[in-house]
Amino acid sequence: MNYKDLFAEIAVQAAQIENLGEVAAYIPELQRVDPLKFGIHLTTLENENFGVGDYQEKFSIQSIAKVLSLTLAFDLEDDKLWRRVDVEPSGTPFNSLVQLEYEKGIPRNPLINAGALVICDILVSRLKNPKREFIEFVRKIAGNQAINYCQRTADSEKSTGYKNAALINLMKSYGNIHNDIDVVLDFYFHLCSIEMSCQELSQHFLFLAAGGINPLNNEKVISASKSKRINAIMQLCGFYDEAGEFSFRVGLPGKSGVGGGIVAIHPGQYSVAVWSPKLNQKGNSYKGMKILEFFTTRSESSIF
Amino acid sequence: MNYKDLFAEIAVQAAQIENLGEVAAYIPELQRVDPLKFGIHLTTLENENFGVGDYQEKFSIQSIAKVLSLTLAFDLEDDKLWRRVDVEPSGTPFNSLVQLEYEKGIPRNPLINAGALVICDILVSRLKNPKREFIEFVRKIAGNQAINYCQRTADSEKSTGYKNAALINLMKSYGNIHNDIDVVLDFYFHLCSIEMSCQELSQHFLFLAAGGINPLNNEKVISASKSKRINAIMQLCGFYDEAGEFSFRVGLPGKSGVGGGIVAIHPGQYSVAVWSPKLNQKGNSYKGMKILEFFTTRSESSIF
Amino acid sequence: MNYKDLFAEIAVQAAQIENLGEVAAYIPELQRVDPLKFGIHLTTLENENFGVGDYQEKFSIQSIAKVLSLTLAFDLEDDKLWRRVDVEPSGTPFNSLVQLEYEKGIPRNPLINAGALVICDILVSRLKNPKREFIEFVRKIAGNQAINYCQRTADSEKSTGYKNAALINLMKSYGNIHNDIDVVLDFYFHLCSIEMSCQELSQHFLFLAAGGINPLNNEKVISASKSKRINAIMQLCGFYDEAGEFSFRVGLPGKSGVGGGIVAIHPGQYSVAVWSPKLNQKGNSYKGMKILEFFTTRSESSIF
Amino acid sequence: MNYKDLFAEIAVQAAQIENLGEVAAYIPELQRVDPLKFGIHLTTLENENFGVGDYQEKFSIQSIAKVLSLTLAFDLEDDKLWRRVDVEPSGTPFNSLVQLEYEKGIPRNPLINAGALVICDILVSRLKNPKREFIEFVRKIAGNQAINYCQRTADSEKSTGYKNAALINLMKSYGNIHNDIDVVLDFYFHLCSIEMSCQELSQHFLFLAAGGINPLNNEKVISASKSKRINAIMQLCGFYDEAGEFSFRVGLPGKSGVGGGIVAIHPGQYSVAVWSPKLNQKGNSYKGMKILEFFTTRSESSIF
Repeated sequence: MNYKDLFAEIAVQAAQIENLGEVAAYIPELQRVDPLKFGIHLTTLENENFGVGDYQEKFSIQSIAKVLSLTLAFDLEDDKLWRRVDVEPSGTPFNSLVQLEYEKGIPRNPLINAGALVICDILVSRLKNPKREFIEFVRKIAGNQAINYCQRTADSEKSTGYKNAALINLMKSYGNIHNDIDVVLDFYFHLCSIEMSCQELSQHFLFLAAGGINPLNNEKVISASKSKRINAIMQLCGFYDEAGEFSFRVGLPGKSGVGGGIVAIHPGQYSVAVWSPKLNQKGNSYKGMKILEFFTTRSESSIF
Repeated sequence: MNYKDLFAEIAVQAAQIENLGEVAAYIPELQRVDPLKFGIHLTTLENENFGVGDYQEKFSIQSIAKVLSLTLAFDLEDDKLWRRVDVEPSGTPFNSLVQLEYEKGIPRNPLINAGALVICDILVSRLKNPKREFIEFVRKIAGNQAINYCQRTADSEKSTGYKNAALINLMKSYGNIHNDIDVVLDFYFHLCSIEMSCQELSQHFLFLAAGGINPLNNEKVISASKSKRINAIMQLCGFYDEAGEFSFRVGLPGKSGVGGGIVAIHPGQYSVAVWSPKLNQKGNSYKGMKILEFFTTRSESSIF
Repeated sequence: MNYKDLFAEIAVQAAQIENLGEVAAYIPELQRVDPLKFGIHLTTLENENFGVGDYQEKFSIQSIAKVLSLTLAFDLEDDKLWRRVDVEPSGTPFNSLVQLEYEKGIPRNPLINAGALVICDILVSRLKNPKREFIEFVRKIAGNQAINYCQRTADSEKSTGYKNAALINLMKSYGNIHNDIDVVLDFYFHLCSIEMSCQELSQHFLFLAAGGINPLNNEKVISASKSKRINAIMQLCGFYDEAGEFSFRVGLPGKSGVGGGIVAIHPGQYSVAVWSPKLNQKGNSYKGMKILEFFTTRSESSIF
Repeated sequence: MNYKDLFAEIAVQAAQIENLGEVAAYIPELQRVDPLKFGIHLTTLENENFGVGDYQEKFSIQSIAKVLSLTLAFDLEDDKLWRRVDVEPSGTPFNSLVQLEYEKGIPRNPLINAGALVICDILVSRLKNPKREFIEFVRKIAGNQAINYCQRTADSEKSTGYKNAALINLMKSYGNIHNDIDVVLDFYFHLCSIEMSCQELSQHFLFLAAGGINPLNNEKVISASKSKRINAIMQLCGFYDEAGEFSFRVGLPGKSGVGGGIVAIHPGQYSVAVWSPKLNQKGNSYKGMKILEFFTTRSESSIF
C-alpha cells in the first residue's frame, strides 16, 4: 500500500466532507475547542509515519483512555477481571442505567462508562498512587514524558458528572465498587482528561496492532493473547451504540472519545488516529468516521 | 360501627396471623427492632381512639413521612409542583431507575424515592432551615412537641444510601434537582428517620380524612381540594409495586414504610395506623396488610 | 345534591370546553364518528336519571367492555383468576409488551389489553358459545335486549389488530393462553365492538355502585366483595397511563374506551357515563375527562 | 499452518471436553437429535479440506441460514436494506421484544429473529416463488443439489413459534412487514429448517472468506464490499447475547444456530463449521464454542 499517496488523497477528501455534527456540550471545557480542527496520523508496524492536518496538536482523548486503563487492569488481574465486568456490546446509549440495573451492577463491557468506572475502582485498589502510576504507565508505552492529565478538563467534567455519579452509586449499591466513590470518580475524570495528539495516539496504540509488544522499543506491554482480546472488545464495544455501524463501514477495532478522537487498529499492520471535534448523534466524531471509512475502503484494509 | 368490639377481635386475630416476612435489611439501624412488635391505632373524626398492642411505642415511620413532605410542598407550590413530579403509579419496584431515565428525570409520583427526593429539593429551596422548619410543621399538625428525627437512623441510612444517591444524581443530570445533592440527601434521610407511634400517626393523619382540617384543633393544614388529591395519590402510589394489591384487599388510600408501619385513611370517617416490622417481598408490612384487610372487611369500610 | 341544576351547568360548560384531541386513528371504523358528539348521563341508586346532549346515541364502548368481561370471569373463577392476571397498575402505555415479557406473560391487570385477552381466553374456556353467552350476560344486566356487537367495528379492528396479535402470541409462548389464538382474538374484537349509549352505560354499571346488585331489578350480578374489588381495579388501572391523573382530578373509579366513552362510579351513590370522541395523548376522551372533573368538583363527590 | 496435525489434536480434544448444556427444547423436532454427535470441518481458500467426527452428517442449520437470506437480500436491495433493519448488536436475549418496541419496529440487526423476519418479508416481496428460489440460490452457491428444507422441522417450529408470531405482528403494527404474516412466517420456518453437514457448511460459506467469490467455481456470489460487511455483521451480531464472548475467545466472525451448528470465517484464509447439539445458557453450542476457541488459539488465527 502506498500510504503516502493515500494520505494526499485524504487531505483533499477531508476538506470536502461537510463538517456536520456538534461539539460535545456536556463537558464545558470541551466546548472551547475549535470545531474546525482536523488531523489524522498513521503509524505502521515498520514505524512508517504519515500525517495530515492538525495531527501534532493535543486534544482531550476522553473515552479512548478507557482502553489504556483496561490494558493495565487486565494485565494486573488476568481473567479475574471478568467477574466484575462483562465483554458484551451494550446495545443502548452509552450512559444508560437500565441494563446496569437489570444485570445487578455488572457492566456490559469495560468501554462503557459503567465498565470503565469498575476498571478505575480496580486500579484504585491495586495501585498505591493511582493517578501518578497510571500516567507513568501511559508515558512509558508512548515513550513520551510530555503526556499528562488536563486539570481543567477533569474539574470541568467533575462539576457536571452527575450521570457518572448515578452509575457509580448504583454499582456501589450492588457491591461492585469497593473504594470510596469520590476517589474513584476523581481518578476516572483525570483519566478521561488525558491529552494526546493523533501522532502520539497512533504510536501509543501500536502495541495492540503488534500482539502486545511496543514495536518502537520492543517492550512487552501485555501478552499477545490479551492484546487480541482487547481488540475484540474494541471491535464490539468501542463506539457506544454505533459499534455495528463502525464495523460495517470501517471494519477495524477501535475506540472513540467525545473529544472527537478515534483510534483504530489493523492487527499486524498499523494503528491510525483521527481527530475532528464535531460529533454525530451517537457521540462519535462525524468527520473522523467518514475519513476512516474512506481510508479503509481505499486501502482495502478492513479486517473482514 | 362498634370499633371497640372490632379491636378486641383484632387483638385475637393479630396473635393468630403468622408473622411472616423479613425486617428491612438495607438500613442497619432498622435491623435492631424487635420483629415481634405489633400495634394498631384508630382515630375517628369524632376523636374516638382505639388501640391494640404496642400502639404507643415509637418506630421509624420511614416513607410514611413522604406524605407529610408532599403536603407541605403542595401547600407551598400549588399546581406548579406537578411540573417536576407526576401523579402516576410507578409499576416497577420502588427504587427502579429505569422509568426515571425513560422519563427524563421526572419521577412518576411523589411517593416513590425519586419523587420524594424532588419534593425534598423543593423544600430545601423554599425553607430557610429545612430540617427545623419541617419538624416544626409535623409537630404542629400532631400537636405534639415530642416528635423528632432519629439521628442514628438518618446516619445509618446515609451510610448505605447508594441507590438514593444514584437516583438524585440521575435527576440532577436532567436538571430536576436544583440544590446541592448532599444537602438534599441529608434532609431526605432525616425526614425518613422521624419516629412516631401508631397513636401519633393515626392522630396526625386525621386531617386527610377531614378535608384538610385537623379535627383535633380545628386548624386547616391544607385545602380540601388538595387533601383529596393527596388521598388519590396515596391510593394509586402508596405501596410501591403493591398499590393494586392494597386497594384490592384493603380498599383505602394509605402509605407504608419499610419500618413496618402503614397508615390508611377513610375520608369522612377515620385514620388508622398499624405497625409490624416484618416486610413482605414487595417491601410492605406483612402482618400490617393482613390486619388492615381484616379491619376493612369486618367494618365494611372500603371506600369502594 | 341538586343534579338537575348541575346538569344544566354541565350543558353550558360542555359547550365552552375546547374540543381538543384526536379521534382514535388505529381502528378505521372509529374514524367515521362525528367528532362533535357529546353526551353525559347520570343514574343514581334511587333510579333518578339526568342526561345532557347525545346521551341516547349509541357509540362503540371499546375497552369499557373489559369491565364487563372481568365481572363475568371473576364471578366464574373467584380468586383463581389472579393466578393468570395481576391487579397492579401498568405504569406504561397501554399496548406495551415490555412489562409483559419482564413478567413472563402475566399481565399487570385485567384492564390493559394483555389482561383483557387473558380474560377472554378464560371465558372461551368456560363458555360453550362465548360470543352469544357474553352478549346475553350484558343484556340481562342492562335489562335491554337491543345491546349488540357491531360486526363492522369488530372486522375493522381485526384487520389492524397486530399489536393485540403480538401480545396474545407472546402470552401463548409463556403458556398463559390456553385456546386457539384466532378464536380468542375474534371474541376480544367482538367484545370491544359492543355499542351502548351513555344512558345505557350509566344504567348498566349501576350494579358496581350498589355492591353488586342491579338496583333497577334487584338482581345480584356479583358479590359485594367482588364488586368492591372491581372498583378498586378500575381506580388503579382504568385509564391506561393516566389512572393517576383521573384519580387526582376526578377522584372516582372508572374506565375509558378509545371510542371516547368514560364510565365512572361513586359507590353508594351513582353511576355516570360521558361520551366525546376526541382523545387526549394518553388515549382518553379529552372533553369527557374535563366534564367529569367539573362534575365531581361541583358536586363535591370525589371518593377521597 | 499444518491443519492436518491440528485436526488430529482436535479429535483428541473433542473427546475430552465435557459435553455440557442442553439440546434446544422449544422446537420438538430438534429434541430428537443424538446429543453426542460432534463434527468439525475446515475448508481453505485453496480448497484443502479437513474433517473430524460426524462432519458429513446433515443437521438443522437453523439460524445459520439467516446469513444466507441476508446475503440474497443485501444483493437484491443494496443499501436500501438498512432502512428496514439496523446493523447494531442487540445486547439482549435473542427473542426480546423490548428493544423492538423501543425502536419502533426496526430490528437491531438482520441476524436476530426480528431482523431475519424482516429479511424474509423483503425476499417474499422480491421473489416470485420464495421457497423454491431461495433453496436454488443456496444449492447454487454450494454446488450441491442435495441441500433441502426439512418439512417436519418447519412444521414443528410453526406449531410452537408464538414468540416469532409476536415479533412479526409487532413489526407489522409499525408498518415494517409488508406481506401477509402467515406467508412470511412459513418462509422463515422453512429457511430455518435447511439441513446441511459441517462439510457442506464450510464449503458453502467459503465465499465470505474469499471476498464474495466462491473459490470452488470462481462464481461471484456477492460483491467484495458486501462480503466484508456481512462478516462485520456476523462478528457483532452472530451469537445472540454472546457475541462479545465469541469474539473474545474465538476471534472470528461467525454465526450459530440452535441446532448446535456454528460456522466461522477467517477472511482470506478459510471457513470452518462445527456441530454439537447441546447448547449453553445463551443458546450457542457449548462444545462447538470450546473447540473453535481451541482451534483459533492453536492455529493463532484470530483476526485480532
